[in-house]
Amino acid sequence: MLRVSPLFTVTVCALLCLAGTVASAATQSTFPDAAASDPATLKWMVGAPPPADRTLRFEDGSYFRFPAMRWSVANFRQLMPTVNVSRGLGAPLALPEHPVPGIDELSVMPVGASQPLTWRQTLDATYTDGIVVLHRGAIVYERYLGVLKPDGQHAAMSVTKSVIGTLGAMLVADGTLDAGKKIVDYVPELAGSAFGNATLRQVLDMTTALDYSEDYADPNAQVWAHAQAGNPLPKPKDYTGPRSYYEFLQTVQPKGKHGRAFGYKTVNTDVLGWVIARATGRNVAQLLSERIWSRLGAEQDAYFTVDSIGTPFAGGGLNTGLRDLARFGEMLRNSGRFNGQQIVPESVVKDIQQGGDKQAFAQAGYGQLKGWSYRSMWWVTHNADGAFMARGVHGQSIYIDPKAEMVIVRYASHPIAGNAANDSVTLPAFEAMARRLLAIPQS
Amino acid sequence: MLRVSPLFTVTVCALLCLAGTVASAATQSTFPDAAASDPATLKWMVGAPPPADRTLRFEDGSYFRFPAMRWSVANFRQLMPTVNVSRGLGAPLALPEHPVPGIDELSVMPVGASQPLTWRQTLDATYTDGIVVLHRGAIVYERYLGVLKPDGQHAAMSVTKSVIGTLGAMLVADGTLDAGKKIVDYVPELAGSAFGNATLRQVLDMTTALDYSEDYADPNAQVWAHAQAGNPLPKPKDYTGPRSYYEFLQTVQPKGKHGRAFGYKTVNTDVLGWVIARATGRNVAQLLSERIWSRLGAEQDAYFTVDSIGTPFAGGGLNTGLRDLARFGEMLRNSGRFNGQQIVPESVVKDIQQGGDKQAFAQAGYGQLKGWSYRSMWWVTHNADGAFMARGVHGQSIYIDPKAEMVIVRYASHPIAGNAANDSVTLPAFEAMARRLLAIPQS
Repeated sequence: MLRVSPLFTVTVCALLCLAGTVASAATQSTFPDAAASDPATLKWMVGAPPPADRTLRFEDGSYFRFPAMRWSVANFRQLMPTVNVSRGLGAPLALPEHPVPGIDELSVMPVGASQPLTWRQTLDATYTDGIVVLHRGAIVYERYLGVLKPDGQHAAMSVTKSVIGTLGAMLVADGTLDAGKKIVDYVPELAGSAFGNATLRQVLDMTTALDYSEDYADPNAQVWAHAQAGNPLPKPKDYTGPRSYYEFLQTVQPKGKHGRAFGYKTVNTDVLGWVIARATGRNVAQLLSERIWSRLGAEQDAYFTVDSIGTPFAGGGLNTGLRDLARFGEMLRNSGRFNGQQIVPESVVKDIQQGGDKQAFAQAGYGQLKGWSYRSMWWVTHNADGAFMARGVHGQSIYIDPKAEMVIVRYASHPIAGNAANDSVTLPAFEAMARRLLAIPQS
Repeated sequence: MLRVSPLFTVTVCALLCLAGTVASAATQSTFPDAAASDPATLKWMVGAPPPADRTLRFEDGSYFRFPAMRWSVANFRQLMPTVNVSRGLGAPLALPEHPVPGIDELSVMPVGASQPLTWRQTLDATYTDGIVVLHRGAIVYERYLGVLKPDGQHAAMSVTKSVIGTLGAMLVADGTLDAGKKIVDYVPELAGSAFGNATLRQVLDMTTALDYSEDYADPNAQVWAHAQAGNPLPKPKDYTGPRSYYEFLQTVQPKGKHGRAFGYKTVNTDVLGWVIARATGRNVAQLLSERIWSRLGAEQDAYFTVDSIGTPFAGGGLNTGLRDLARFGEMLRNSGRFNGQQIVPESVVKDIQQGGDKQAFAQAGYGQLKGWSYRSMWWVTHNADGAFMARGVHGQSIYIDPKAEMVIVRYASHPIAGNAANDSVTLPAFEAMARRLLAIPQS
């Protein structure tokens, strides 16, 4: 079904969960391919002023229609208010570069396909905006497409969750937070919501039972109310709903019993962000800078989008430079040690790698992710290499393969939000790269 | 009139031009002093969520009421969309530090005062948020107050104009622009406006004759229409006016003859920004990064606020780290050479230092700036040291004193916009510092 042609047909999930792969009630739709939708060629927001049909605005939603969205994911700060995540002021830690020849021709067999693609073709098939592959800490492959540049920042989407989950797990490890405690103990305002009697661990692993749908195809899904609450623009005069992420979280009601099934819902990460803010006196942007970003030798500041009262969007608002995301991934591959210091405790990384409750995960029905689990907001493959992932809509990925000593970070702008639409190419491509790199002897 | 006390009385200009010092129809008003208005103490936007009376929003104007404004000037990106000015990805150029002892006790005699202030007292009297003094390229004094930190960014306000003026003069020097050409030759859309038949030189030196008032006390002043056009928020349904900076500029009408008198009006810089964008194919944020910021060894990215179609606010939208502004000033003090390269042509710096038309300047009636002139959007003192300045409302300053081998950069949040309110302290303070540093022998 996935072909590389000017206009190709792909499966659209009726259920587009923010980084999920639920494929049900699939409908057919047609999108221009990577070349035809290239935001550099289409010249969004270029010109003084840009032509009317190339002008994108946050207020009317034009910024997130495909293919315009391909520009917007690399330019969120031009559309809405944001808060900085400082890299600190020192010199960046350079990533060594040891390009491996022939990678563009590496053969990748997509799931369900009859013919292989080359690695280079997989980049177009997944609408890649930028990709960096690290092997033993060195850049072996790096490419930028569309409008993303090495000195630009791109939306991490739900990869944000894994970053916030890491911060949460660090606070558990250092005793600031207790994973067994109830959320209400940290945020009394959540007493009347579904979260109040959930444990922090259930929130970290998204085994809360919530009456909350992220079905973008359903206009009554709670995800729309969540988005409206967090929208930083002035609310309509007749609007009576929640006016911030925090206000929205208090309205989420329970459905079922916590702790039984994995239910991938963005609001869990927003709750974690709130808990972190209450426990540390710092919002997640400040804490991320202090604990991680300023210690990574990052070359760029990162940022979060914010709601109307300055709350960083913990569930999906992080934007970073691609190489800095690679530094973050490489730090975790090295058991939390990077740039001459232990940034994340080794025990935290080990706990994530060991994964979460596979049975709970299986109940969520991710057909392409059989045998996986979810731990502290990371997706754990439980494959032979012990790989684990951060995943965000439209193809955002951190893929850490300990056995292959490999980290892949990819920013993308696939027309379909749910990763079910690209996993059949993405996962075989990342595994093929691991096999290629495993073949390189230690020097 | 200016006393250091918990609540002190200052002169409010009825005419608050954006960096001007026009003092007419002065009225009395009372503002809390620096300590009582300290944004760190008042804890704006602190808490999860911040208390209602400490929550600032762009949409209702609460963000710019004093003293809340003292937080906002260091956090513009949290309030509105912005565009990045990349520092590049390399290592910053460290500024050497050679603290000079006793500076806090340096005596400063404000104009019209009967008693001197200490240097340290002048910082409070001018509501300083951060100040760096360079002598022979080394930091001899550095202090942060309020909520500005070394790794934060602060609004440069109309200091932006001098940065854009420098870019414009660079493009004249390299032949991209012709200062003698008419604006209409670069931007045909301005044919029907006051700018059409002005020369680029007249725009650079603000000797255009415009029917445009920046009198903030007059609700009918054109400056409000300018602000509304550039406001990135959705326009009210019944709004029929211009919807971007570029649309607004086309509405400005002439009043008098170009070239005769200095008339400090922000729209000139917006026109220059438009000319630059048309001539280079890059907006001022991109060009500033390419030509200057990425070559300075800056330690932070800078940014511009943008209007609803992504136009960087050339007239006043730049925000930078304080030390990076110091690097910019030091580069100009060194005739454009810095970080091992010629960044701005020496001829450009020399031309600015020589100043503009003193007679044209005198007609604008700046009582505290007798004998000064304005050239390529820089304020030139014509004092014995050959000092020249960039000036922005509420006290933003770059002060370059070639003879004293001194650069002072100051970010501030004085309750009164016009610099007439702080010049009586600021200018003697900067001159006293120059005298102090001139006394240090060459080592």
